[in-house]
Amino acid sequence: MKLYHSKGSPNSRRVRILIAEKGLDVELVPVDLGIREQASDAYKAINPRQVVPTLLLDNGIAIGEVPVIQRYLEEVSPEKPLFGTTPEERAVVGMTDRRIEAEGFASVMEAIRNTVAGLKDRAIAGPHSYAQIPDLIVRSKQRVANFYSDLEASLKTSAYVAGADFSVADITTLVTIDFATNAISMPIPETAVAVRAWYEKVAARPSSQA
Amino acid sequence: MKLYHSKGSPNSRRVRILIAEKGLDVELVPVDLGIREQASDAYKAINPRQVVPTLLLDNGIAIGEVPVIQRYLEEVSPEKPLFGTTPEERAVVGMTDRRIEAEGFASVMEAIRNTVAGLKDRAIAGPHSYAQIPDLIVRSKQRVANFYSDLEASLKTSAYVAGADFSVADITTLVTIDFATNAISMPIPETAVAVRAWYEKVAARPSSQA
Repeated sequence: MKLYHSKGSPNSRRVRILIAEKGLDVELVPVDLGIREQASDAYKAINPRQVVPTLLLDNGIAIGEVPVIQRYLEEVSPEKPLFGTTPEERAVVGMTDRRIEAEGFASVMEAIRNTVAGLKDRAIAGPHSYAQIPDLIVRSKQRVANFYSDLEASLKTSAYVAGADFSVADITTLVTIDFATNAISMPIPETAVAVRAWYEKVAARPSSQA
Repeated sequence: MKLYHSKGSPNSRRVRILIAEKGLDVELVPVDLGIREQASDAYKAINPRQVVPTLLLDNGIAIGEVPVIQRYLEEVSPEKPLFGTTPEERAVVGMTDRRIEAEGFASVMEAIRNTVAGLKDRAIAGPHSYAQIPDLIVRSKQRVANFYSDLEASLKTSAYVAGADFSVADITTLVTIDFATNAISMPIPETAVAVRAWYEKVAARPSSQA
């Protein structure tokens, strides 16, 4: 089993942290985004969307899309569960993770892809060209601000993002916050005290270095 | 178990078709989007994002997000599987469904939400206000056109969207095409012969009436 990834890619980091939390043995294969290796014929053959990460199984099946890779790894290695342990827990974790991804992670990504000069005709990741839309930069940052205020309300009454236990939703949230801090200068607001306390706790886990 | 839904909501239809395919006994509770019942206090208590559908379990747990509801129903009622039957099959179906959703379904939704006068300050579903961005209408329609050409390439060599068997990815694709046809006047292109043949086959299933 090999994970094609990039060290600087937040989506790759989401899978690396899960691998570290569960202590799995997965070979990491770097893809050099700087030279657009993700658009090479060799990489397109395993991921036609030309994005990292991709999990390549020993039988040749290639799995893309971060939450799908994470869920596959959980299914084949259920020890140290990160999606809960019952259908109801899996539903709550899955729902929460998807909302964090749509409202937080995707908003940061959208702000960057519509800003960076090098992505001028690639405002959406994938094989097709799309022009940048400057109005989206403003709107994406509003969405990140709302993501922080909604997260603060939620963490006031909950130890972790999807409930009492650390889960994949905490991984998505940690990566989103580091991504917003480093790439669009939107760190956790000073007033978001519950988010700050949660962040200290989660960033202290060894997996956060992955 | 109750599904809060709206007859005219494509996201609700995705769950209704799965229920019909699997022959499940789920009570349907209508939510009147015309009077913005989704923003009522009663509905917000079960879905703070104020969108349909929501699956309310008998123990009070509320599950939102279409693929999460679908996967929960599959887990508790595995007969007539719509996600495959092995971890590898579930990964391929999940990956394919997510791409159809992101590239097809979400593009149609984005075109509409940035167009319709009644959604002027609600360009993104949920509790927060976001202004419409006219440039997104153009870009969303380009994305729908690319969705059709990518789908045509895929269905030339595959009986169903995620492989040899009918799956939840076919449900998402059917609903996306009907949504594009009816809401933004983008039916299947004449040249997409494999998509047209697939559509005839899938639309003939009784579940498509759900």
